[in-house]
Amino acid sequence: MTPTTPRTPEIPVRFEDIKAAASLLAGQVHRTPVVSSRQLDERAGAWLHLKCENLQRTGAFKIRGALNALSRLSNEERARGVLTYSSGNHAQAVALAGRLTATKTTVIMPGGAPAIKRRATEGYGAHVVAYDHLADSRERLARERAAETGETIIPPYDHPHVVAGQGTAGLELFEHTGALDMLFVPCGGGGLLSGCALAARRLAPNCHVVGVEPEAADDATRSFYSGTLQTVNNPDTIADGARTPYLGDITFPLVRACVDDMITVSDAELVRAMHFVWERMKLVIEPTGALALAGTLSGKLDIKKKRVGILVSGGNVDLAYAAQLFAAL
Amino acid sequence: MTPTTPRTPEIPVRFEDIKAAASLLAGQVHRTPVVSSRQLDERAGAWLHLKCENLQRTGAFKIRGALNALSRLSNEERARGVLTYSSGNHAQAVALAGRLTATKTTVIMPGGAPAIKRRATEGYGAHVVAYDHLADSRERLARERAAETGETIIPPYDHPHVVAGQGTAGLELFEHTGALDMLFVPCGGGGLLSGCALAARRLAPNCHVVGVEPEAADDATRSFYSGTLQTVNNPDTIADGARTPYLGDITFPLVRACVDDMITVSDAELVRAMHFVWERMKLVIEPTGALALAGTLSGKLDIKKKRVGILVSGGNVDLAYAAQLFAAL
Repeated sequence: MTPTTPRTPEIPVRFEDIKAAASLLAGQVHRTPVVSSRQLDERAGAWLHLKCENLQRTGAFKIRGALNALSRLSNEERARGVLTYSSGNHAQAVALAGRLTATKTTVIMPGGAPAIKRRATEGYGAHVVAYDHLADSRERLARERAAETGETIIPPYDHPHVVAGQGTAGLELFEHTGALDMLFVPCGGGGLLSGCALAARRLAPNCHVVGVEPEAADDATRSFYSGTLQTVNNPDTIADGARTPYLGDITFPLVRACVDDMITVSDAELVRAMHFVWERMKLVIEPTGALALAGTLSGKLDIKKKRVGILVSGGNVDLAYAAQLFAAL
Repeated sequence: MTPTTPRTPEIPVRFEDIKAAASLLAGQVHRTPVVSSRQLDERAGAWLHLKCENLQRTGAFKIRGALNALSRLSNEERARGVLTYSSGNHAQAVALAGRLTATKTTVIMPGGAPAIKRRATEGYGAHVVAYDHLADSRERLARERAAETGETIIPPYDHPHVVAGQGTAGLELFEHTGALDMLFVPCGGGGLLSGCALAARRLAPNCHVVGVEPEAADDATRSFYSGTLQTVNNPDTIADGARTPYLGDITFPLVRACVDDMITVSDAELVRAMHFVWERMKLVIEPTGALALAGTLSGKLDIKKKRVGILVSGGNVDLAYAAQLFAAL
């Protein structure tokens, strides 16, 4: 038997929690394909394996963490419902997880969020509450509401079950490819990055794990190298899933403990990586979903002749908006 | 042992040829994913399984037939080189197959073909010869050139090894899903359709096999129902891979023998199906690649509660052109 790693107050997620999440999620979320492209490999001078979470249910990895978290609530907690805040992929993920677990869900969303995102979230059966994001803090609103309603808050990343759920994407990748030399993962709040890094530490101890952020939202990179939590405020980047202001209480120590490098890429690099994947690999990926590939191709780290895993986090992007980004190339 | 089907002069392709092609192609072409979407299933009231040949090497199924044909040439034939005519996916497929088998390839292409298609074909190492498609017949030019050079002609569909190669897409689909109630396949010259239908006849004898054409290029549908070869001339449809003027000497009898129904869809139906697949399923597919899904959703055949296979034939489409199609929705 493999000895289990103890949970600590600082790092309350273990590899075993990812394994347990994988068992729980089996058959409810897609085991997404891992794809490669000889053209891409020739260009990179390396063997690149892309884990396609854009092909996941709801179009992003977020359903893994949300469904893991909701499934672990008691019947009593589920009866009181859950609450979250997000205008992005986590909102739809919690909404779908609510439907799958017969749990009432409420999502606090900025009043100015795109109608299509609100409709998609409501389409899965969630109740959407609009707030004024300039006047109010979504976290404070959520705490106040939860105190009244008894709803359980499922935050977008800083939650042990959410991190463990996201880590199943990394687990599946290693199960498919075997040990890799390097792994590149997008970083917003650090849920996906820390979960995948935790999987890497066990399954491929020598794998060099790299988090990738947009240049304009480099808080995690600065936090990682300084050792002190850094923040950004409403950064200007097309990678909307990585505009998160800071790492969490759980994800920051996990990133520090399990990640080897943090790098940043420009929006122009993101658009070029996206365009390659759409045009040559026939996959629709969102700007945030292109972070890891853009980081791989950025030249910031030596990837030559390495076996490289790349987490493609999602594919939720307005097609006309993407066409505009490509037209400006 | 399963008894083998005899080859006949009319139908010189047997199921065993598809099996043999699959062995030969293994490891050289992708075993493409089969994907499904709960949203799509809910909308269709059926279980839909999409075989993603858009994720195939060169972005379309055509490499299957081309590589099978080139691999079966003698060393002497390979030394003399091969010749084909196509401005589309078959051109790139023959070019790549030539590279993989160390065979010199020449492609006869209309002078007005898009520069990007010519470059892609040349990029794989083929020699491209332009011709005036208003003044000349590409088949005649090919025959004349081959008589001089000794090159072997590998036509886009009417060739036993090409049909057998394309049939491996259907074989893989049935191996993945088990017997299906229905199978929808795009039809241009009938290579993919007849190969997949032949696989269906053996692996799922009760499967209802349906060929799908664009309304404006309905020659195969008319041929199928009349029993006499019908033609179209340069039809006006966005499904450029299905503008083929007629079925072939091999594919027509095969389609008559193995296909159960032929239907047509409008360009507007194609754009709607494409848009759904791009937006919801995160896959880039070309107009021709959307034929089978559009046929499935057309309402022309009862699919309710059926297990349906759908061949997505390719994903080679200019991204800006696709954005224009979507903008007109």
